[in-house]
Amino acid sequence: MANGIERPLDLLNNSKGKEVLVYLKGDKQFVGTLMAFDIHINLVLDNVKQMSNGEVTKSLGLTFLRGDTIIYISPASTAL
Amino acid sequence: MANGIERPLDLLNNSKGKEVLVYLKGDKQFVGTLMAFDIHINLVLDNVKQMSNGEVTKSLGLTFLRGDTIIYISPASTAL
Amino acid sequence: MANGIERPLDLLNNSKGKEVLVYLKGDKQFVGTLMAFDIHINLVLDNVKQMSNGEVTKSLGLTFLRGDTIIYISPASTAL
Amino acid sequence: MANGIERPLDLLNNSKGKEVLVYLKGDKQFVGTLMAFDIHINLVLDNVKQMSNGEVTKSLGLTFLRGDTIIYISPASTAL
Amino acid sequence: MANGIERPLDLLNNSKGKEVLVYLKGDKQFVGTLMAFDIHINLVLDNVKQMSNGEVTKSLGLTFLRGDTIIYISPASTAL
Amino acid sequence: MANGIERPLDLLNNSKGKEVLVYLKGDKQFVGTLMAFDIHINLVLDNVKQMSNGEVTKSLGLTFLRGDTIIYISPASTAL
Amino acid sequence: MANGIERPLDLLNNSKGKEVLVYLKGDKQFVGTLMAFDIHINLVLDNVKQMSNGEVTKSLGLTFLRGDTIIYISPASTAL
Repeated sequence: MANGIERPLDLLNNSKGKEVLVYLKGDKQFVGTLMAFDIHINLVLDNVKQMSNGEVTKSLGLTFLRGDTIIYISPASTAL
Repeated sequence: MANGIERPLDLLNNSKGKEVLVYLKGDKQFVGTLMAFDIHINLVLDNVKQMSNGEVTKSLGLTFLRGDTIIYISPASTAL
Repeated sequence: MANGIERPLDLLNNSKGKEVLVYLKGDKQFVGTLMAFDIHINLVLDNVKQMSNGEVTKSLGLTFLRGDTIIYISPASTAL
Repeated sequence: MANGIERPLDLLNNSKGKEVLVYLKGDKQFVGTLMAFDIHINLVLDNVKQMSNGEVTKSLGLTFLRGDTIIYISPASTAL
Repeated sequence: MANGIERPLDLLNNSKGKEVLVYLKGDKQFVGTLMAFDIHINLVLDNVKQMSNGEVTKSLGLTFLRGDTIIYISPASTAL
Repeated sequence: MANGIERPLDLLNNSKGKEVLVYLKGDKQFVGTLMAFDIHINLVLDNVKQMSNGEVTKSLGLTFLRGDTIIYISPASTAL
Repeated sequence: MANGIERPLDLLNNSKGKEVLVYLKGDKQFVGTLMAFDIHINLVLDNVKQMSNGEVTKSLGLTFLRGDTIIYISPASTAL
């Protein structure tokens, strides 16, 4: 668990191609496959679902998320 | 799907000339054709419609959107 | 429409001397003639009218607007 | 009107020694003589009056205003 | 009045050793003797009193104030 | 106690591999094992539990926390 | 009093090893021994107590406080 994580971005790098939970300011939650990220923590997720109380409220497909509004990012396998 | 996306801005580059959904802080939503973007995620959209609950509430035509207020950008074909 | 817009600031450059609608955080709206802008999206507008529900609520003449509070800028010809 | 304004700060430069209306986030309004400004839009005003609904609510004399909280600056001659 | 103020920080420099009124976001007000400032408008004040409706609500002595939360700084002799 | 802490990041460095309490804006609290941090105070925590009133409300496993939303970080041994 | 304070950070340097009161946005208050600080005003405090209305509400021990949320820092000897 958490092998090879020296810097925070290593976790994002390890999560490429995997499903992640992204929690935003204002309590918005998204689940999707992490395709890309940058040092501003801008993300591209694929197959994005917006979630509320464990239910899908919106399907967004491929989406660019600005890093600025993100609180945390958690690989979904460990978050559920 | 999501082919050739190495960095988050690649999705914006791939979406030029296509319709995108832009979701802002304060729950404002816009749909329009992506004409230009920069590294601050400032956008120019054309044929912009402001949306609320799936209805067009305002037509804005060609519009400059400041990146600072953006939460996510989703190509409309995948978001609807 | 949108000819020659490669970067977002190109739209502002094309709009110099024209009337624009500027929408600010906190739902303030201004209409005025765009005189100048910079990379922070600070603007100078002339003949500024503050608008609310389509009515002029205040006449401000020549005004400096800080870019920091701007959500979008739309040439008024396309916004009305 | 607006002659010689190529960049937004030119309006501030032209307004030195003149009365300006400064509108801040949180709907605070000040009127005073612009003495100095910098690229952060920090200002020094003299003979500052805080205004509310067209009435003077406080006299502050010489005052340093942080640019960070400013929404707009309008030469008072054009704003009233 | 306001002699020798070319840049906003000149007012702070002229106010060293003098009593100033500092007004913060969230409507907090402090009065104290300005000891030091930097380009971020971080301040050190001495003999600080927190004020509310013209009454001292707290005595803080020597205090470091982060510039980030400051709205305005006014030499107390002109502000009262 | 606090031996060898010359700069704030030294405490984070000393806490690697240990359980920490992380308190976020909006009163969110997380407890987890600190795996990595950077100069933006972005963190990776493992075995993350979201806490509310001393109870675990959510288990997140391995999680990336953006530094931007953090108020304080306290080694859990000293915080409980 | 306030001898040798040329720049704001000098007060923090003089307060190392001493008890300080730290007041945060959102009206959180902490008292603790200042161990370290940096130019972002990130702090490490030891023996931290969270205070509310003059009562200790939480003991945190050794804690990293992000500078971003700090309003003021006052040596406790002068603040109480």
